Amino acid sequence: MKFKLEVTDSHTKARAGEITTDHGVIQTPIFMPVGTAGSVKAVHQRELENDIKAQIILGNTYHLYLRPGLSTLEMAGGLHKFNGWEKPILTDSGGYQVYSLSGVRKIKEEGVTFRSHIDGSKHLFTPEGVMDTQRIIGADIIMAFDECTPYPCEYGYARRSMEMTHRWLKRCCDHFDQTQPKYGYSQTLFPIVQGSVYKDLRKQSAEMIASFEREGNAIGGLSVGEPAEDMYEMTEIVCDILPSDKPRYLMGVGTPVNILENIALGIDMFDCVMPTRNARNGMLFTKNGIINIKNERWKNDFSPIEEDSDLFADRNYSKAYLRHLAHSNEILGSQIATLHNLHFYIWLVSEARAKIIEGTFNEWKNKMVKQVAQRL
Amino acid sequence: MKFKLEVTDSHTKARAGEITTDHGVIQTPIFMPVGTAGSVKAVHQRELENDIKAQIILGNTYHLYLRPGLSTLEMAGGLHKFNGWEKPILTDSGGYQVYSLSGVRKIKEEGVTFRSHIDGSKHLFTPEGVMDTQRIIGADIIMAFDECTPYPCEYGYARRSMEMTHRWLKRCCDHFDQTQPKYGYSQTLFPIVQGSVYKDLRKQSAEMIASFEREGNAIGGLSVGEPAEDMYEMTEIVCDILPSDKPRYLMGVGTPVNILENIALGIDMFDCVMPTRNARNGMLFTKNGIINIKNERWKNDFSPIEEDSDLFADRNYSKAYLRHLAHSNEILGSQIATLHNLHFYIWLVSEARAKIIEGTFNEWKNKMVKQVAQRL
Repeated sequence: MKFKLEVTDSHTKARAGEITTDHGVIQTPIFMPVGTAGSVKAVHQRELENDIKAQIILGNTYHLYLRPGLSTLEMAGGLHKFNGWEKPILTDSGGYQVYSLSGVRKIKEEGVTFRSHIDGSKHLFTPEGVMDTQRIIGADIIMAFDECTPYPCEYGYARRSMEMTHRWLKRCCDHFDQTQPKYGYSQTLFPIVQGSVYKDLRKQSAEMIASFEREGNAIGGLSVGEPAEDMYEMTEIVCDILPSDKPRYLMGVGTPVNILENIALGIDMFDCVMPTRNARNGMLFTKNGIINIKNERWKNDFSPIEEDSDLFADRNYSKAYLRHLAHSNEILGSQIATLHNLHFYIWLVSEARAKIIEGTFNEWKNKMVKQVAQRL
Repeated sequence: MKFKLEVTDSHTKARAGEITTDHGVIQTPIFMPVGTAGSVKAVHQRELENDIKAQIILGNTYHLYLRPGLSTLEMAGGLHKFNGWEKPILTDSGGYQVYSLSGVRKIKEEGVTFRSHIDGSKHLFTPEGVMDTQRIIGADIIMAFDECTPYPCEYGYARRSMEMTHRWLKRCCDHFDQTQPKYGYSQTLFPIVQGSVYKDLRKQSAEMIASFEREGNAIGGLSVGEPAEDMYEMTEIVCDILPSDKPRYLMGVGTPVNILENIALGIDMFDCVMPTRNARNGMLFTKNGIINIKNERWKNDFSPIEEDSDLFADRNYSKAYLRHLAHSNEILGSQIATLHNLHFYIWLVSEARAKIIEGTFNEWKNKMVKQVAQRL
């Protein structure tokens, strides 16, 4: 993986850059649609590429490990071959899902034992095992195995958890560096800064993570329920420490406003289920604000979902039609809303990139954070 | 509407023809994908047009009447404008759903009172009202209001029901002929032959229906649970009576074999939920037989869903990937399987048409009915 820092904004800490992987180039800042079980829900791979213009998607190690399972993924030749997405993929480490989805789980120094949310079967994730798993899935960018602390989190627990995450990182790196990619293209490992909402812990963790000198760095444990101001404060502290010549990935963030504010603090990569999950509940993000398409207000609004959009679904379907589909629980409603939201998220980050390059990012961002947060 | 009978097969009663509506031409024999509530479930309108190559879709009056409702449909300018499908549409009369979906219902000479399956509200469908409703929905081809008898059905009930359907037809025609289309393009009304599985009733009904001299005729009350041989026997009796210079529509049929056998008996138009509904349960129809994609057998079969298909989804996704999506209840699984099945159904009828024109239909049909019924 290569990262080229192209432009740093002079009014904010925003950056425009370019990541090169063996599956292609990613222009940053970027948003990565979440493809939990190897599918970005309700959209075809060709729609992701041609209509949404996604440059990289995310897969969840926990889900893929359980289903279809490693033997199928390995026989397929990795996730790219399995799902037919030939551009870059990033996988998380499975940690987040082990803590949030699995019923019984036990965290020890060795790793985490948990029960599958599908069939109750018992499994063990260790730092070494998760590296092997992500070698088999074959994503271009893979993540270290960490503990993602909940919010709120007592200081003592946050510190001990962070220290264990650092020890696990050492094990991840050692194992990763001793193993080879399986499918002839290279993989890179990103470590994850933890430390909850405690400044000293975040600082300490960022310094530790930077010292591993990997090709990119991530920030985890945010967007878990803390106030947005706390999130921005943590991001700022961490970004000031993480090296500027490597991409910075803020995991699981967030609303359009969160994304714009964090770009201004120096984040290059984002992922979040919000555009896809909320789409399936009828919430549309637009450049003029948020639409609950189920509202009575749209019942007889036959104007296109978004008039001046270059997305076919925005132009070809009306708000009234989409409202009808949402109320009727029609699958097409989820398809249209998901296309719309992902297209908007990708538009938002690519527009941010253009403004950074142009030198007008700050002004534009200050206008947009007001606009996109409105309820229409 | 115009119908041009192009070729009649010399070995069977199969026909190739062309229906011209104000929304375009339909080459027969044709299969019409079912778009219950104004959406063919899990496919975009552009996919219907470009990938599936549907020439006409069906809408359900019962569903559309309840949701989005007539005032929205009228304000939109009809269903074509509402859902963005600009090719021909056919609507059923709502009768079938009133009998099958609605809880409480009461059939009287005047019409049928029923309760909505959505909110329990009470409604009355009469022959005249259903004509008005279908004027508002604005389909190119609309259907008479009939009673679709269940199977099995006692002779006396079948006869009385058929006679009422005939009286209702008179009221439908009178009302239809006294009203005008609402949106500047023409609509045509098809009457429906009933009579359950009784030869004398079917003959009597077909003669009565033919005597109305509408532009096309339909056969209802089949594919409701009777043995396939009974269905074919009824179709044959009816087709021998219905005029050959008008299209014949067999409602709600059926499996690929049913479609081929009924084409051989002189049917021109079909609709059925089977390709769409069964797709959502993981059943794929192919030219080589039926696949239950959830079976263990496909777990590690990384070959394309259908190698030599011109459908992107057949070539871009593997059987193993589709199996994984079906087991994971991923929406994309329904999308892919629906695309596949509808593409196959449309291929099947267009191939039948080509063979009729070529003069090789009978031989081809006899081979295909064996092939498509196999379990793979």
